[in-house]
Amino acid sequence: MDEPSLRLILEDLLMHAITPDEAVTLLRRLPFADIGHTKVDHHRELRQGMAEAVYGPGKSPEEVAAIVRELLDHSSGPVVLTRANDEQIKAARAVDADVEQRGTILVWRPAPRRDHNVVVLTAGTADGPVADECEATLYAHGIEATSLRDVGVAGLHRLLAQLEHVESADVIVVVAGMEGALASVVTGLTAVPVVAVPTSTGYGTAFEGVTALLAMLSSCASGMSVVGIDNGFGAAAAAVRYLSSSA
Amino acid sequence: MDEPSLRLILEDLLMHAITPDEAVTLLRRLPFADIGHTKVDHHRELRQGMAEAVYGPGKSPEEVAAIVRELLDHSSGPVVLTRANDEQIKAARAVDADVEQRGTILVWRPAPRRDHNVVVLTAGTADGPVADECEATLYAHGIEATSLRDVGVAGLHRLLAQLEHVESADVIVVVAGMEGALASVVTGLTAVPVVAVPTSTGYGTAFEGVTALLAMLSSCASGMSVVGIDNGFGAAAAAVRYLSSSA
Amino acid sequence: MDEPSLRLILEDLLMHAITPDEAVTLLRRLPFADIGHTKVDHHRELRQGMAEAVYGPGKSPEEVAAIVRELLDHSSGPVVLTRANDEQIKAARAVDADVEQRGTILVWRPAPRRDHNVVVLTAGTADGPVADECEATLYAHGIEATSLRDVGVAGLHRLLAQLEHVESADVIVVVAGMEGALASVVTGLTAVPVVAVPTSTGYGTAFEGVTALLAMLSSCASGMSVVGIDNGFGAAAAAVRYLSSSA
Amino acid sequence: MDEPSLRLILEDLLMHAITPDEAVTLLRRLPFADIGHTKVDHHRELRQGMAEAVYGPGKSPEEVAAIVRELLDHSSGPVVLTRANDEQIKAARAVDADVEQRGTILVWRPAPRRDHNVVVLTAGTADGPVADECEATLYAHGIEATSLRDVGVAGLHRLLAQLEHVESADVIVVVAGMEGALASVVTGLTAVPVVAVPTSTGYGTAFEGVTALLAMLSSCASGMSVVGIDNGFGAAAAAVRYLSSSA
Amino acid sequence: MDEPSLRLILEDLLMHAITPDEAVTLLRRLPFADIGHTKVDHHRELRQGMAEAVYGPGKSPEEVAAIVRELLDHSSGPVVLTRANDEQIKAARAVDADVEQRGTILVWRPAPRRDHNVVVLTAGTADGPVADECEATLYAHGIEATSLRDVGVAGLHRLLAQLEHVESADVIVVVAGMEGALASVVTGLTAVPVVAVPTSTGYGTAFEGVTALLAMLSSCASGMSVVGIDNGFGAAAAAVRYLSSSA
Amino acid sequence: MDEPSLRLILEDLLMHAITPDEAVTLLRRLPFADIGHTKVDHHRELRQGMAEAVYGPGKSPEEVAAIVRELLDHSSGPVVLTRANDEQIKAARAVDADVEQRGTILVWRPAPRRDHNVVVLTAGTADGPVADECEATLYAHGIEATSLRDVGVAGLHRLLAQLEHVESADVIVVVAGMEGALASVVTGLTAVPVVAVPTSTGYGTAFEGVTALLAMLSSCASGMSVVGIDNGFGAAAAAVRYLSSSA
Amino acid sequence: MDEPSLRLILEDLLMHAITPDEAVTLLRRLPFADIGHTKVDHHRELRQGMAEAVYGPGKSPEEVAAIVRELLDHSSGPVVLTRANDEQIKAARAVDADVEQRGTILVWRPAPRRDHNVVVLTAGTADGPVADECEATLYAHGIEATSLRDVGVAGLHRLLAQLEHVESADVIVVVAGMEGALASVVTGLTAVPVVAVPTSTGYGTAFEGVTALLAMLSSCASGMSVVGIDNGFGAAAAAVRYLSSSA
Amino acid sequence: MDEPSLRLILEDLLMHAITPDEAVTLLRRLPFADIGHTKVDHHRELRQGMAEAVYGPGKSPEEVAAIVRELLDHSSGPVVLTRANDEQIKAARAVDADVEQRGTILVWRPAPRRDHNVVVLTAGTADGPVADECEATLYAHGIEATSLRDVGVAGLHRLLAQLEHVESADVIVVVAGMEGALASVVTGLTAVPVVAVPTSTGYGTAFEGVTALLAMLSSCASGMSVVGIDNGFGAAAAAVRYLSSSA
Repeated sequence: MDEPSLRLILEDLLMHAITPDEAVTLLRRLPFADIGHTKVDHHRELRQGMAEAVYGPGKSPEEVAAIVRELLDHSSGPVVLTRANDEQIKAARAVDADVEQRGTILVWRPAPRRDHNVVVLTAGTADGPVADECEATLYAHGIEATSLRDVGVAGLHRLLAQLEHVESADVIVVVAGMEGALASVVTGLTAVPVVAVPTSTGYGTAFEGVTALLAMLSSCASGMSVVGIDNGFGAAAAAVRYLSSSA
Repeated sequence: MDEPSLRLILEDLLMHAITPDEAVTLLRRLPFADIGHTKVDHHRELRQGMAEAVYGPGKSPEEVAAIVRELLDHSSGPVVLTRANDEQIKAARAVDADVEQRGTILVWRPAPRRDHNVVVLTAGTADGPVADECEATLYAHGIEATSLRDVGVAGLHRLLAQLEHVESADVIVVVAGMEGALASVVTGLTAVPVVAVPTSTGYGTAFEGVTALLAMLSSCASGMSVVGIDNGFGAAAAAVRYLSSSA
Repeated sequence: MDEPSLRLILEDLLMHAITPDEAVTLLRRLPFADIGHTKVDHHRELRQGMAEAVYGPGKSPEEVAAIVRELLDHSSGPVVLTRANDEQIKAARAVDADVEQRGTILVWRPAPRRDHNVVVLTAGTADGPVADECEATLYAHGIEATSLRDVGVAGLHRLLAQLEHVESADVIVVVAGMEGALASVVTGLTAVPVVAVPTSTGYGTAFEGVTALLAMLSSCASGMSVVGIDNGFGAAAAAVRYLSSSA
Repeated sequence: MDEPSLRLILEDLLMHAITPDEAVTLLRRLPFADIGHTKVDHHRELRQGMAEAVYGPGKSPEEVAAIVRELLDHSSGPVVLTRANDEQIKAARAVDADVEQRGTILVWRPAPRRDHNVVVLTAGTADGPVADECEATLYAHGIEATSLRDVGVAGLHRLLAQLEHVESADVIVVVAGMEGALASVVTGLTAVPVVAVPTSTGYGTAFEGVTALLAMLSSCASGMSVVGIDNGFGAAAAAVRYLSSSA
Repeated sequence: MDEPSLRLILEDLLMHAITPDEAVTLLRRLPFADIGHTKVDHHRELRQGMAEAVYGPGKSPEEVAAIVRELLDHSSGPVVLTRANDEQIKAARAVDADVEQRGTILVWRPAPRRDHNVVVLTAGTADGPVADECEATLYAHGIEATSLRDVGVAGLHRLLAQLEHVESADVIVVVAGMEGALASVVTGLTAVPVVAVPTSTGYGTAFEGVTALLAMLSSCASGMSVVGIDNGFGAAAAAVRYLSSSA
Repeated sequence: MDEPSLRLILEDLLMHAITPDEAVTLLRRLPFADIGHTKVDHHRELRQGMAEAVYGPGKSPEEVAAIVRELLDHSSGPVVLTRANDEQIKAARAVDADVEQRGTILVWRPAPRRDHNVVVLTAGTADGPVADECEATLYAHGIEATSLRDVGVAGLHRLLAQLEHVESADVIVVVAGMEGALASVVTGLTAVPVVAVPTSTGYGTAFEGVTALLAMLSSCASGMSVVGIDNGFGAAAAAVRYLSSSA
Repeated sequence: MDEPSLRLILEDLLMHAITPDEAVTLLRRLPFADIGHTKVDHHRELRQGMAEAVYGPGKSPEEVAAIVRELLDHSSGPVVLTRANDEQIKAARAVDADVEQRGTILVWRPAPRRDHNVVVLTAGTADGPVADECEATLYAHGIEATSLRDVGVAGLHRLLAQLEHVESADVIVVVAGMEGALASVVTGLTAVPVVAVPTSTGYGTAFEGVTALLAMLSSCASGMSVVGIDNGFGAAAAAVRYLSSSA
Repeated sequence: MDEPSLRLILEDLLMHAITPDEAVTLLRRLPFADIGHTKVDHHRELRQGMAEAVYGPGKSPEEVAAIVRELLDHSSGPVVLTRANDEQIKAARAVDADVEQRGTILVWRPAPRRDHNVVVLTAGTADGPVADECEATLYAHGIEATSLRDVGVAGLHRLLAQLEHVESADVIVVVAGMEGALASVVTGLTAVPVVAVPTSTGYGTAFEGVTALLAMLSSCASGMSVVGIDNGFGAAAAAVRYLSSSA
């Protein structure tokens, strides 16, 4: 974390180019200083184990392009753009066309393939885009997830038929809307870490994902943890942390 | 519905004891008139197929006793007192000690045993009192329910081991708190009518039963219908209607 | 629960290690297995008494068409597409034009006409589409419902005038938005099973159907059960279960 | 409103005891000045047509007694203490024992009997205390309301039997918890002003009165207006305003 | 209410054209029978003192036109169409062009001018459309309201300057969004009946009118009653009931 | 506040042109009278220290233009139009083109530059428009804020690097959506008055700013106060009050 | 902030007692290190301008006493204990009996009296305890607030009579429950910084302070900022920051 | 999936029809069967990697004791009783006094010590009981967590001073109420898996933990996942899964 700058000050001190008092002043905040003109967070990969993802909504195509360029120029790891609209995607591809697009996610410089077994389950077909976001983010970090779609509890046998596969995962991500019961059932049947992603799938009392969220948080099956509604990116980030921690 | 009174008026008219104009006035509201001094609903059993249950909370022991006495004296069917506290129970038993008590429910003059197969499932031990209320109400209407407790999805095999029994029910009542996933799973596995009762079991994000309620209403498994939180009485009432309708 | 188990049972049978009766018992759960490449749930009709309905929202027209084709090719019962938008309807009709469309619902191969008396009531004209969905789903399962529209409590006499008809139903479905009082009134006046469907009709404090939902769940009239907001399909599914159970 | 003080200043001006500039300063806020040591609102009866009611909860018995004494000593109209607990009641009675107590409400110096026909309906027995508060407040203002208890929609005929009486009221107050449907039905059946009071009667999805409140505000029957949950006092206040306005 | 039909039956009975038993059957439901093919509520004006208003949203232009025509043809009082969109207005005007339009409300056959003093206050300019709806509905019933716009508490002197006028009203309608404080202030300053209409004006924590609604229901100033969010029509209906009751 | 009118009355009295009684009547409400035809609040700047801002949403371009013209013609201080859409901006510029536009805010006649140090922080890029509104409003009152964008807690070092600057502010405005943690951190690190503005940035559980709002109100760091969601204008108004009070 | 430690390291470096590499390691986190065994935040007074207040609820009497002792022994500024129950108060007084108690707040070593004019208003008598907490906290920081109780908008003249006093404050704190309209009215009438504190006073739709909170956040009067429900301490903390900033 | 199937497999094995390996595979799902009279889940440890914890609330002391005895007699792993009240604890200790009690948690037969580095952080002292529950559960599974209490963001330096330690954890559990900002800050500063536990610490707008929950779910720092409010047990369960998965 900026050791060269730190070392510079100390060497100045050793060479009496600055006084101890001056050094005190310089050092008081240094560990967090950003040297230069931009606040793009080049050190996040070191600090958090992940590249900063650019979140599309609320940014102009120009802003998106500028941030992507900055990240590609001044860092060396993977760069991810999520929830981009068509114009943002167009602007971002123009920065560097060597990019993998999955749904509304763009991935530049994916990490080398790592040998982890992540299973991403969805309860229904409509949960697909959130699972896509999760899998694309995992891909950016070197992980090709196994995708099992449409295995919700309305037809429980579909899940049970795949249970052996699911049980052998390193991490399971369950993506489910409506009442989100799939997450409880999977957690009850396995000993694997489960990250649950409530989705805004459904209507009426599904309340845009709130019902699934509350159900997952209140599960009678212990050992599941939950990320925000539709936050496939966050689930992937949690999975990456676990896999990195255990490696 | 009060045909004798109606007939009386018509006969008065035929005998010219009253004029057509007077008859018009008398008849305008007659079909719904209660002749007498009390509004206790003696005709509910005829009209709705169930005796009026006396709901304890918010009534004084004296009020409870008076209503129970009124019902026992002027009707002939079963009488049910629900959610009674100790003092209400004591006052009600003093009215007529020939009563069956189940938890906080008292049943006088239960209907003759009917041959229906109702299965009441609970997700956990703590859902018991609500299931008790449901089963006692069914008993009042002549139905001895089969009780399967503590078969929640955290240990799904407990349910699956009883599946054959569950599938053969005429009506299934699922009583579950927390995330209420048991209702979805049971509905997905069977073709039987399912009445789901969310309970206030759980803490934090279980939100006193709201989470289970929303999950049940949003279930991906179709064919379940839901009653209010902790409303074991209401679930029994719904089941009785179905069984009466189909008999 | 997979091909080997299946093979084992069959071989046991062939070798007279088990009787045909025993095999039947063992095989009753076999539909859990998905034999082949797809998770479309061909056995749902056997297991739940209803064909899988295809829920339109969140699926591409291509996905809708593929699922409909799969179901028509590999099952023999009714197929229902609900809440389809114009493009989904077009794509689905192209799969098989021999289809009955009611509002935004398409029904292929409706079940033979069954002799059940289901009455669908709406409180106001604006509740119509939800009632349409309910009635179309009933039609798919062989039931021609009686439709009584616009009989809400603001003009109670409209309902009372039809009361005799309503009282004779096997199942009543009440579709109501705003304060949903119609469901309470109907339940109070009859002994028939009542399935209540809150709708998102109304504005302001109607809160997109939440008010009607809560009112129905809190009804002082016992014996009603409730499905999710605007869920006409679910109400029909519940009615079908009741009617099948009682047949 | 404090004309003597106002006149005093003007007379000082006329007598040149003060300059116009001084008068300007004095007069800038005078119309609202309270001359003296207390902020008890002695003019409320003149300004709003009602005496200030003392709301018990959150006040010590001593504070309650002091306020009641202040009001009795310095005003001449009725004084009402609402929702008083036992200790507050004891302290308040000690101030002046010539008081009428109804439930948790105390009324001193009720207004002379006025000839108005107010009907207070409750849906169930448990709504009684709120209706008591309403009726006691009406009594304080000279109105003896007609009380019709336990006429909820679960037994609609009980209401219909009294309809003629209800239709002839000057104002109707409907007190109802649970789903509050009684208010809609009464409004639909009559042309009388209806003030609806949701109560916290019920459990679970009744949500302490919120469900009844929302249902009343969303009623399909126009012409009802609503006060806060359990606010029997407020309903009486609204009724008094209407009756005073029309006298 | 349908006395001719009633009389017919009785005369048949007197003339022995029908037996008492048949008469019983016929009479059981007669008072509420609608004789004919339509459920349009022609008797509402008699029963509730107001013509049925046609609520636009959720109806097709054709449905709107048909209902308006029906009402104009078979009743004699005022007819009101509210919240109509452009196409509905066009369709409705084509039915009968002799109509007064105010904003999105159309009024046919307004009642003769009545001599009542209703004051409609708005807190801000943006509350205008709801006040328009209220005033147009009052106009349909013969009342020309006094309109005081933009007198919210951010500039309290604007209200105080008009206070004498406001105090002399028969009924005050306060239309306010955001925090809705105007209703409390007006109620505190006057003895007139106040009907408060919360509006969805504002953003963020105004929560589409919920904040104003709750504030009005919780007002420390007694004697106000409240209608639903943006329900200018309902406020007018309540005012009409009061004025009719007091006439 | 209208002293000339007041003085006039008093002089009339002194000259016996009016009697003391007449003066009493005239004076009862005078301090708040608006002499003339308009309710535009010309005295707000004197009374509240700020010009009335015109809030765009819900007003027609014509209304916006009329109000702006009125304010420019009859007051002398700054005039601000906020949240204007394109047509409103066009109409307002046509009134007086000598205007500074920042985003959707227009400022006429900004106050002379004052020497205050206000720092406006945003957590992310998407919070920009709310910060723009805040800064434009400050500019209208003579304050050029220092803008520090995109310093949220996901990269805490970005904030820490600027800490010395932040600590020296007179007032800090923190604009943050999602979980709003930046406001807590800044309040914990400084002794400066902090006004927190929750924004509707984020999706799912961010609930349109509610999460940030609640988090800010519940902060473990004392000394922060909060304005409504997305209310950059309100934050500026609070800051101006503080700076004016301390000047 | 720990400069001696910092200086020590640098001197070690200058004296070659440690290498630059070792210094880098030591310095990386030093500016925030707490040297010793306790995390009690002795530097908060320097950093935030206020002593750390000890919040009573959820702590044992022993924990409270230990924290108070720690703060009294190792810091020199005021120490505040808020919302203490009887046992906590007893335990805390035993630590140091030289303490000022106001309601449930204890203040040790109050700061010297500062010359600031803070006015604390309450809407009703029941808001008193929250105002007490605010005033006691101000007292701890050297400020004797002026207390104006019971000046809510139901009797607006009570406030108006004190307006001159209120207008001359440096900061106004408005403490109000129910609909919280007092805050809007005060903000509209003055140019002073207003900190609004919603309280849980009221019942039913007051929703434990949520209604007042939302109303204050949505006020049409700009320049108010808000703290959490019942958070009198937080309002005082905000006021102290403003007064310190402007001194 | 029942005894016959079990028997079949075993007989096949005896008859060498299947190999031991095949039998293992077949039997892996066998725990679905409950052999005998009880539904206590003896196989949960195998299936989910954790012993079934007994959740105290809602169970009688006798029920608690019976379940604990059952688990101790028929399983061999750790047994945990959580949230037990005094009577439950007494009854449970009577079953087997060789138990470790931590707060309201009892642990029998803890797993052998495992070498994992879990850090449990709390924001404030009042979050302690939830952290206790988490740490006791970890202890039952062989993990002695490092406990860092009272490091919330109001005094951020307390956390920063421990950062090196925190960064080296295998899993971090953050326990925080109020606005829950600590979780965001920790996640932003580290690359370790973070499980966040919102607590019901705080009052007013903390809404019993909902604010912290929403804030954690909406965090701008990616890679955190969340369990239910006050669910220290669930956080431990999630941590155990991660550590078991990575071992």
